[in-house]
Amino acid sequence: MDYVTFIGLTAGALTTIAFLPQVIKVRRRKQTRDLSLPMYIVLSLGIGLWIIYGVFLNSPPIIIANSITVIFSIYILIMKIKHG
Amino acid sequence: MDYVTFIGLTAGALTTIAFLPQVIKVRRRKQTRDLSLPMYIVLSLGIGLWIIYGVFLNSPPIIIANSITVIFSIYILIMKIKHG
Repeated sequence: MDYVTFIGLTAGALTTIAFLPQVIKVRRRKQTRDLSLPMYIVLSLGIGLWIIYGVFLNSPPIIIANSITVIFSIYILIMKIKHG
Repeated sequence: MDYVTFIGLTAGALTTIAFLPQVIKVRRRKQTRDLSLPMYIVLSLGIGLWIIYGVFLNSPPIIIANSITVIFSIYILIMKIKHG
C-alpha cells in the first residue's frame, strides 16, 4: 500500500470512528434534542454521493470510509426522527 | 468541469452544509449536552487528514469541502468544551 492510500485510510478511519461515540450516546440515552435533524439528512445524502465519487476516482479510502459512515449517519437520523 | 468533479463538489457541498444547522443550533442554544465530545475531536483530526489526502490526490472537491468542514467541526468542538 502506498503512503497516500495509507493517509486516506487513516483519514477515513478517523472520520468514520468519529460518529461511533455519537451513535453510542444516542443509543444509550435516547435523547437527541440537541442534535440537528437537517444535519443528518443532508449528511447522509452527501456521504452517499462521496461513495459514488470514490467509485469514479477508484479510491478505496473514500469508498470504504463513507460506506460505513453512511450507516452511522442514517442510524443517528432514524433515532433523531424517533426521539425528536 | 467533468461530471466526476461535479459529483465530488456536490458531495462536498452537502457534507459541508450538513454541519451548518448544527453550528447554528449550538450557537443559538448554547446547549451541547447531547453532542459527543470524542466525536468532534476525532472528526476534526480526520477531516484534517482528508485535506492532506485530497492534496496528494489533486482532488479539489476533497480539499475544498474538508477545508470548510474542519472549521465547522472545530467550532462545534470549542462550543462543546465551553458548554459541556
